[in-house]
Amino acid sequence: MTNIRAVVYGVGAMNSVITRYLLDKDVEIVGAISRSPDKVGKDLGEVTGLDRRLGVSISDDPHEVFTRTSPDIAVVAITSYLVDAAEHFRIALSHGVNVITLSEEALYPWNTAPELTAELDALAKEHGVTITGGGFQDSFWVNAVAQLMGTAHRIDSVTGTSSWNVDEYGPELAELQQVGATIEEFDAWCREAVRPPTFGRIALDALVAGAGLTPKQILTRTEPELAHETLHCAALGIDVPPGKCIGFTDIDEIRTEEGPVFVFRMSGRLYGPDDSDVNEWTIHGEPDLVMSNGTPPTMATTCTQLVNRIPDVLDADPGFVTVVDLPRLRYRHGRLHDHLSRWSSDRYIVREEL
Amino acid sequence: MTNIRAVVYGVGAMNSVITRYLLDKDVEIVGAISRSPDKVGKDLGEVTGLDRRLGVSISDDPHEVFTRTSPDIAVVAITSYLVDAAEHFRIALSHGVNVITLSEEALYPWNTAPELTAELDALAKEHGVTITGGGFQDSFWVNAVAQLMGTAHRIDSVTGTSSWNVDEYGPELAELQQVGATIEEFDAWCREAVRPPTFGRIALDALVAGAGLTPKQILTRTEPELAHETLHCAALGIDVPPGKCIGFTDIDEIRTEEGPVFVFRMSGRLYGPDDSDVNEWTIHGEPDLVMSNGTPPTMATTCTQLVNRIPDVLDADPGFVTVVDLPRLRYRHGRLHDHLSRWSSDRYIVREEL
Repeated sequence: MTNIRAVVYGVGAMNSVITRYLLDKDVEIVGAISRSPDKVGKDLGEVTGLDRRLGVSISDDPHEVFTRTSPDIAVVAITSYLVDAAEHFRIALSHGVNVITLSEEALYPWNTAPELTAELDALAKEHGVTITGGGFQDSFWVNAVAQLMGTAHRIDSVTGTSSWNVDEYGPELAELQQVGATIEEFDAWCREAVRPPTFGRIALDALVAGAGLTPKQILTRTEPELAHETLHCAALGIDVPPGKCIGFTDIDEIRTEEGPVFVFRMSGRLYGPDDSDVNEWTIHGEPDLVMSNGTPPTMATTCTQLVNRIPDVLDADPGFVTVVDLPRLRYRHGRLHDHLSRWSSDRYIVREEL
Repeated sequence: MTNIRAVVYGVGAMNSVITRYLLDKDVEIVGAISRSPDKVGKDLGEVTGLDRRLGVSISDDPHEVFTRTSPDIAVVAITSYLVDAAEHFRIALSHGVNVITLSEEALYPWNTAPELTAELDALAKEHGVTITGGGFQDSFWVNAVAQLMGTAHRIDSVTGTSSWNVDEYGPELAELQQVGATIEEFDAWCREAVRPPTFGRIALDALVAGAGLTPKQILTRTEPELAHETLHCAALGIDVPPGKCIGFTDIDEIRTEEGPVFVFRMSGRLYGPDDSDVNEWTIHGEPDLVMSNGTPPTMATTCTQLVNRIPDVLDADPGFVTVVDLPRLRYRHGRLHDHLSRWSSDRYIVREEL
């Protein structure tokens, strides 16, 4: 029985959950890649908390892993922005390996990193493989919203509110979100920071593009979120006293040539005891519409959606294909391999050498 | 400039709203069909409350209308079940006209009316056109739910709750919903009634099929809704005292071979002062998930979704194509014609005579 063969690229919190999900759906994990010295050489099952060995030794040499294992797809969860992730994508694509990634910018990078995206698009096409960015945003910020938009006759505005707990995503993101900074440090950072595009803006780019609309003006403003009581940040191993930053809220707005305005308030902060994730979208127009997802299980659905997208990525045409252009996300009961419709491991072999 | 050319087939409450939506999106309405003697011969704009004439005279002869106007699509809003609507569909399809319909069973009729569906599928293919059932259920009961399912790793159950106010749909439906009946009368009706498949069951059929699952057992049970305080039924002009029926709730359940169970509770009853329409779906599994749409604008989104589906129907392959197999519903800004991707009016001309 043929199974999808995957390499886990990056062995952090997300790919640990994803490893278990992949195994549950009979994906064969043939390799694992990490640069972290305390993970290299160890067994993937051990490091991801599975309490069993998988016979997959974590390597810091992606070339060696891809050459030795020839996987169908690499599940890349390393870093948020294309400029940092590109080298990893290049390695996978050059080895003829499809890529699905949690890199947030990869959700829709055509506006924020057009040259890099075009380069990766060309590289993917050259090697007959597909690269796609997915995760929580796929459905909750893009495709479910786009579908709600599809129930409108006329849209004046689309407004989203979302929040996530900084403490669930490791130290890199906690530092990026300015956890522990004073308000002065936050202000200074805000003035001086050359910040990459926000995740909310990237989601709005996807929504606007998916609706066939044309961005006219793009605004992002950022408001600090301050601790009202001392909150512990496990990711950084610090306590944040009242008055210091526990994160911030980005308010992105895209105005379009055609009229509809898109606004997204995304708050990434340390949670207090009464906080929980939200995902709510409101459309004003004819008629007014709302969608909410209670307390969405953000981390779990980051991983579930990535795994459920794998058959779409394998089935897609080669190139950089965003979730805007993939089919509607589907539940994948049982073996992931059974959900492929047209893919076979040699469909896009561009050249084969002796 | 080419526009989509449509015939409005059935001129009731829904197609009156749809007529305005079509005109807003530059669809050319070339004909209108109704059997109602008080509408035939009148102008469509007048009858649909547009306060202006459209130069479209309502006809009771569909053959004449289709022959004379050769429309691209017929928007059919006449009756709920395929057995009653089939003759109208046959006429449109035989004239090489695509069909989109609000007939509830047409949403997914392959299980409840397999022979009739296969016949219409063959007829559509023979004439190179597509027939699709759409409306409120498209997104709110099927595709938005299916997309939420796509954020799950494992599904144990999917449960939907929806309600509608019996008093908004006239006396016939109020009587059908047993408003004013005693519990003994309700029980007697329940024992003897030969009821067609519920709309909820048809939506579950679509969900199960879309997820690639296999129905194992299908149960529908019906529970009376009893007045807790005296409620007035405007449709019947009666007061319903405590203890008597104000409607009922159908609970449809589909158990699948693969495990996941689908349940839909649809309540049609007289509303008390605190009641409003709801659309809520809960998934139990890994993880648990919820979606709700506040008080969904049921009638408006019945019409919006049908109109927004028209480009998908024209672009689709010929046959009976359900919303399960169409692309994700999209918002259609501006001219509907601009949203076509591969359709042209002669793409599927099967034969052309002198």
